[in-house]
Amino acid sequence: MKAKTIRQRGGHQQYPDEDLPLAQMSKRSAVDPFHAMDVLAEATRRRDAGHPVISMAVGQPAHPAPKAALEAARRALEHGRLGYTDALGTLSLKKAIAAHYQSRHRIAVDPQRIAVTTGSSAGFNLAFLALFDPGDCVAIARPGYPAYRNIMATLGLTVVEVEATAETGFTLTPESLERAAAKAGKPLKGVLLASPANPTGTVTGKARLKVLADYCRARSIAFISDEIYHGLTFAGEEATALEVADDAVVINSFSKYYCMTGWRIGWMVLPEAQVRAFERIAQSLYISPPELSQIAAEAALGAQKELDGYKRAYAANRDLLLRRLPEVGLSIASPMDGAFYAYVDVSRFTNDSMAFARRMLSEINVAATPGFDFDPVEGHRTMRFSYAGAAAEMAEAMDRIARWLG
Amino acid sequence: MKAKTIRQRGGHQQYPDEDLPLAQMSKRSAVDPFHAMDVLAEATRRRDAGHPVISMAVGQPAHPAPKAALEAARRALEHGRLGYTDALGTLSLKKAIAAHYQSRHRIAVDPQRIAVTTGSSAGFNLAFLALFDPGDCVAIARPGYPAYRNIMATLGLTVVEVEATAETGFTLTPESLERAAAKAGKPLKGVLLASPANPTGTVTGKARLKVLADYCRARSIAFISDEIYHGLTFAGEEATALEVADDAVVINSFSKYYCMTGWRIGWMVLPEAQVRAFERIAQSLYISPPELSQIAAEAALGAQKELDGYKRAYAANRDLLLRRLPEVGLSIASPMDGAFYAYVDVSRFTNDSMAFARRMLSEINVAATPGFDFDPVEGHRTMRFSYAGAAAEMAEAMDRIARWLG
Repeated sequence: MKAKTIRQRGGHQQYPDEDLPLAQMSKRSAVDPFHAMDVLAEATRRRDAGHPVISMAVGQPAHPAPKAALEAARRALEHGRLGYTDALGTLSLKKAIAAHYQSRHRIAVDPQRIAVTTGSSAGFNLAFLALFDPGDCVAIARPGYPAYRNIMATLGLTVVEVEATAETGFTLTPESLERAAAKAGKPLKGVLLASPANPTGTVTGKARLKVLADYCRARSIAFISDEIYHGLTFAGEEATALEVADDAVVINSFSKYYCMTGWRIGWMVLPEAQVRAFERIAQSLYISPPELSQIAAEAALGAQKELDGYKRAYAANRDLLLRRLPEVGLSIASPMDGAFYAYVDVSRFTNDSMAFARRMLSEINVAATPGFDFDPVEGHRTMRFSYAGAAAEMAEAMDRIARWLG
Repeated sequence: MKAKTIRQRGGHQQYPDEDLPLAQMSKRSAVDPFHAMDVLAEATRRRDAGHPVISMAVGQPAHPAPKAALEAARRALEHGRLGYTDALGTLSLKKAIAAHYQSRHRIAVDPQRIAVTTGSSAGFNLAFLALFDPGDCVAIARPGYPAYRNIMATLGLTVVEVEATAETGFTLTPESLERAAAKAGKPLKGVLLASPANPTGTVTGKARLKVLADYCRARSIAFISDEIYHGLTFAGEEATALEVADDAVVINSFSKYYCMTGWRIGWMVLPEAQVRAFERIAQSLYISPPELSQIAAEAALGAQKELDGYKRAYAANRDLLLRRLPEVGLSIASPMDGAFYAYVDVSRFTNDSMAFARRMLSEINVAATPGFDFDPVEGHRTMRFSYAGAAAEMAEAMDRIARWLG
């Protein structure tokens, strides 16, 4: 492959986004796509057409939900009475999540501070709606999870992207926040930090979390801690913001460590005084999270042994990618201490990661996500590979890539 | 009971909404609660505490999902591989929904125009985001479903409430829209009509739907047709907007006729040119609808015989309420032609339906929804009773109310 020559854009069924906005559509409907989901859709089409696709495009664990979760769901199906629950979830699941904080982190959390959500996606949307009004400045790391930026843009918030590089330990710091706010010309109303982070794998330890929480509190900035990759830390110190701040908004999920992406179930821990405002918004926007998923999630909390086995499988995949990606010329661009992603520099082969991703999928049936999703500035020369898949598929994907780039 | 004396407000754990906004919270976080969800939460607490609660508060069918849906879900749990799907749902379910339009309405719909959503709640949110920008005027009927108003308020849209009375056949008309727009002082950007309607039960037939769709098209107004109570029409002509307009945004759900509230699964039919914009927003806000619910929903589409049996049970409940509510002094305020609600006038007993609802729950353990949810102007003297419950419970509730008010 002469990868340096990849430049073509457009003409692809999935990316007709230049044609918009249409008559009758809102300005905000021109928001960026979540490219990883586009890649997933294309990968699904190709697989359905009989191609041997290996997907490293989305953070989709190879394993099903824990056995206890599947069994709890199966039992609930016997009677089948599944209905609306309280808007912020069943008390039973909220108590189980509180017990989880007690056993795992030795922190007492009042179950009434917990809000069960339809995936962390609902958590982010609710947090942005409850905490910010249009025009408010909210800081996120660049590179970072694209849905932050896309949801905020849809809601009219001002996204302040803060470069997270080796210099800042790939995380946010008071200094980098100060610089970004000065550049934005407006004070920040919110700071959102993910640890472990997607796509960089950065794990921000307790001390640095405390510095950030204190910085935010002193300036009346809302601090949102995305902890959806908790349980998947391979190096460094995994801490919850609750250890250092009662006033943080913590967002978590059953999708990743608990292998329950398709169940759309997550949770938040909220400052007590904010619970009712979140509840009011959730009542109308979501009614309630899916009940069967709540039942299964409660059982999943007790499945740590099974899930830690899956974590060991990710660790082996991680070792493989850490070794093989640089061998094939794709250098690792960030820590990979947590989550299950390798963020790599593809500039040796292309300056158009979108075209690179398309060709990789069409020529060798390996799906990965172009860096544009995570970094609108530098993403043309980066890609993200998820290593949440099965070991044999990861190895086969590396072989195909080696041959393709070799 | 001396119901006329009911005036007290506040002091109730569930309604501390006067205390907000809090520091750090957004202005929009002061949005109204969805009172029916508050009543549901209180009913759940009382039931958990051992009280013999009968809930007529929310549109929650007494029956579980159809057997075929439960069986399809059970089979999927055997392998348990449930993950992210395409953001707008699986092709398989989209094709099945398209086939449903063919068999039920004799309309050919391209499956690519169908967007599977996490309940109709996601459908409304996506439609408001994709079609309107902050400040845009969108007309809805008053009384009407409260989440319309609450979601729009949260998103900064201008809600134009159009009185739907006996004079207008309890629906929207070009004349009532004209008057409302003139009063708003701004042209409408959208019109949302539900048929069958919640809470009034109004069924708007094909001819009137066409008049509305034509009116909107001529003025470049987006027309949204809420059809989530389709299948539950007891009088009048049930029509889909698709019969009269290719450019309507149609929202539907598996919650009501299909008895799948707790599964959080619904769909939209979109104008072809708008699909991609909806998909972009859905990718980041929802990732994808729950996969197990998609699998079950596809099976539910084939269960019409079982579901029509449930419909006959609602019809019997409806007959009971049509007879007994007026007998106890609660006069029926609107058609009850479709959906499964009785909207009643409680002004003989109270001018504070909120307090009335609370006392009814605490004194006779019958939960129903105060009219404020549906009508901020006249709702102090109305209540909504859902008759989607079991026949025996409906009869028992009527007995309790008769004794209480007698």
